[in-house]
Amino acid sequence: MTNDLKKAALEYHALPTPGKLCIALTKPTETQKDLALAYTPGVAEPVRAIKADPNEAFRYTLKSNLVGVITNGTAVLGLGDVGPLAAKPVMEGKAVLFKRFANLDVFDIEIEASDPQTFVNTVANISPTFGGINLEDIKGPQCFEIEQALIERLDIPVFHDDQHGTAIIVVAGLLNAIELQEKSLEDIKVVCLGAGAAGIASMRLLMAIGLRRDQITMVDRTGIIHTGRTDLNTHKFAFAAQTDKRTLEEAMIGADVIVGVSGPNLITAQMLKTMAPYPIVFALSNPDPEIEPKIAHEARSDLLMATGRSDYPNQVNNVLCFPYIFRGALDVRASRINQEMMIAAVNAIRSLAKEPVPEVVLKGYNVCGTMSFGKDYILPKPTDPRLLPVVSAAVAKAAVETGVARIPYPQNYPLSPMEASAKMSTRVLEEEASL
Amino acid sequence: MTNDLKKAALEYHALPTPGKLCIALTKPTETQKDLALAYTPGVAEPVRAIKADPNEAFRYTLKSNLVGVITNGTAVLGLGDVGPLAAKPVMEGKAVLFKRFANLDVFDIEIEASDPQTFVNTVANISPTFGGINLEDIKGPQCFEIEQALIERLDIPVFHDDQHGTAIIVVAGLLNAIELQEKSLEDIKVVCLGAGAAGIASMRLLMAIGLRRDQITMVDRTGIIHTGRTDLNTHKFAFAAQTDKRTLEEAMIGADVIVGVSGPNLITAQMLKTMAPYPIVFALSNPDPEIEPKIAHEARSDLLMATGRSDYPNQVNNVLCFPYIFRGALDVRASRINQEMMIAAVNAIRSLAKEPVPEVVLKGYNVCGTMSFGKDYILPKPTDPRLLPVVSAAVAKAAVETGVARIPYPQNYPLSPMEASAKMSTRVLEEEASL
Repeated sequence: MTNDLKKAALEYHALPTPGKLCIALTKPTETQKDLALAYTPGVAEPVRAIKADPNEAFRYTLKSNLVGVITNGTAVLGLGDVGPLAAKPVMEGKAVLFKRFANLDVFDIEIEASDPQTFVNTVANISPTFGGINLEDIKGPQCFEIEQALIERLDIPVFHDDQHGTAIIVVAGLLNAIELQEKSLEDIKVVCLGAGAAGIASMRLLMAIGLRRDQITMVDRTGIIHTGRTDLNTHKFAFAAQTDKRTLEEAMIGADVIVGVSGPNLITAQMLKTMAPYPIVFALSNPDPEIEPKIAHEARSDLLMATGRSDYPNQVNNVLCFPYIFRGALDVRASRINQEMMIAAVNAIRSLAKEPVPEVVLKGYNVCGTMSFGKDYILPKPTDPRLLPVVSAAVAKAAVETGVARIPYPQNYPLSPMEASAKMSTRVLEEEASL
Repeated sequence: MTNDLKKAALEYHALPTPGKLCIALTKPTETQKDLALAYTPGVAEPVRAIKADPNEAFRYTLKSNLVGVITNGTAVLGLGDVGPLAAKPVMEGKAVLFKRFANLDVFDIEIEASDPQTFVNTVANISPTFGGINLEDIKGPQCFEIEQALIERLDIPVFHDDQHGTAIIVVAGLLNAIELQEKSLEDIKVVCLGAGAAGIASMRLLMAIGLRRDQITMVDRTGIIHTGRTDLNTHKFAFAAQTDKRTLEEAMIGADVIVGVSGPNLITAQMLKTMAPYPIVFALSNPDPEIEPKIAHEARSDLLMATGRSDYPNQVNNVLCFPYIFRGALDVRASRINQEMMIAAVNAIRSLAKEPVPEVVLKGYNVCGTMSFGKDYILPKPTDPRLLPVVSAAVAKAAVETGVARIPYPQNYPLSPMEASAKMSTRVLEEEASL
């Protein structure tokens, strides 16, 4: 980050008021009569209605549109364990993204919790507040048991974005990359560099759509994860290979795909040169990727590459997913976010990248590079307004079809993602015309 | 409540969107550049700053203006133990009042907690989120230990409004009533009907300003609280009298003041007739007072009466206090809300009732009855715009003077409550002129 950006970021957060959010009132509150509806005595009526039927909370309170973005601050961005208080700007930033992209309201909650059980209990205790819970920036491997425990205990969606949000975008991008590099899922060899939340969730989701475990070599900072190691938690051990290979260099030889979710500059040009023809390199470490695109492209002209950054082509950014997976889940009041919903999001995002971008959407979007499906455009841009209807609809539909929805698919939802795309295009045109 | 009001209240809460609140964004978020400041990579800078100095959270996040309104739903309005979920409309209503009257932002948190220790731990765990905590609608006697434990554990203000908010308004109203009825605090006999959070806190605050314990007779549903009873918790026992009297009827004979914080129609006309000359009756049970004003005034023409309702004179309503006690506390970043701050609020509210109401403030306020200091106007009206500067300033000043403030008294704060009143009047005039 430049010093100018650092200064601008501090000013942005401090002025004119601290932070990035506020509470706004959505109903009239001017008169005594208004307040008699908002508070006592009128408020007794919705209380009685909810007491009689808990589902009425979704009709009379913000619960229906309210996501808790909850952290203990143990794995914040690239900054590590900064604790709950210092994590607050990031959680408020996440709230900004939820609001900006899917009109979801977020209370960010920073939890002081020294152990996973305390964290789980605390989140469960405050869960009546929310319609859904997005776990954020919790270190591994605790994040796995925390999420699992909360999914089992609560009847609202619980989603650890660092796992599944990342996995959904990685898999959507990879599947499009595999198609463009003319490979097939059954034959590829995949190296996953980094065995934290994002790496493990991405490989799990790939396996859910058909990749075999023996196609994956997972590498952590100690080297290849193999059955001979005694330092592995159960989540890593599930990926342990029976192999004599030990190093990243060895793993890369002949690999078709490398997914880096680790740290800067861990992949060398020499390693890329040993990969299979038409290799796929996802170097997602942020802000500094596992290998700089310039170096990578010099090493391999047949490369397809993605990073986590917005200033290179093919940004893998989970903002493509989390606002819409919650939008879709909350709109049909899903009790959970299941694998089918995640795969529906993958497919919707994939298909959107292949759908030509309407002129009107392109216009005014100051984005990097091409927006036509190909090696430099395998994923939609985060600011693509078609993501909201397309991905949310796909997720909601999957929730209904798998029986986790508690209200019907909304009448006003688009019938298909492509129809939504067309509608959006029309609507944007109309809005522009009316300005 | 009429059926029309019930219907209107349900519609108000349900349409056009569920609930009364939403999250709004206070900074630009349109462009990619905006988002790079709000989220990654820019957000790393405030994270680093807060990690280095926790106080910076007040500069870079909403914490500085954020109150948690937190309940377990065990004592909601007149509805009792409805549980956390059904309490949500009330908590959102409280958020509306905080925003409307003091521009404070509130996350309402509903906690599922079967015991006080779980509740305390949960609130303490999520406390990094907030700048202050308002406990709400928690049943007694647990509310006392919960509040005390949290005050001791946390370094942000913790305030149980049902205790202290009510107590501050009761004491402000009583002191003005005592003055108008030409009594003196040293000589009066006080009956407190109801020994829950509000009753006990009101009597404690009266004692803090000089009332002796032997001037108080406390009565609960079993009768007079006396030293011979074996069913008393420690909070009630502190008020136990050495007396042979047993009933409310007996307690009322010769009493100067009755404070009712119990239930409807528990005080009879006959009881009022046995009170001392120029009696003071606070019948605060809501919506139905301990005795109807019409019956009370027929029984005693020398009466001064207050209720909890807005459609009678002298409404005792803690909205006169809680928005401003938090506004004042947060504006000087107080570590707690101490008794001196509460007494400062009492005095500010008292003095505001005696200050003539500017014509411009009167205008457009559709309030019940007179707004000139006297037996039918002992407290300011909840919609009086002078409350914000006057009460907040007094509270902030007391925090600074008692050493619990962590930043100086703001430069732009009014120098005295009366000056604030004058300024407000001028400002309202100017605003009206500019319309």
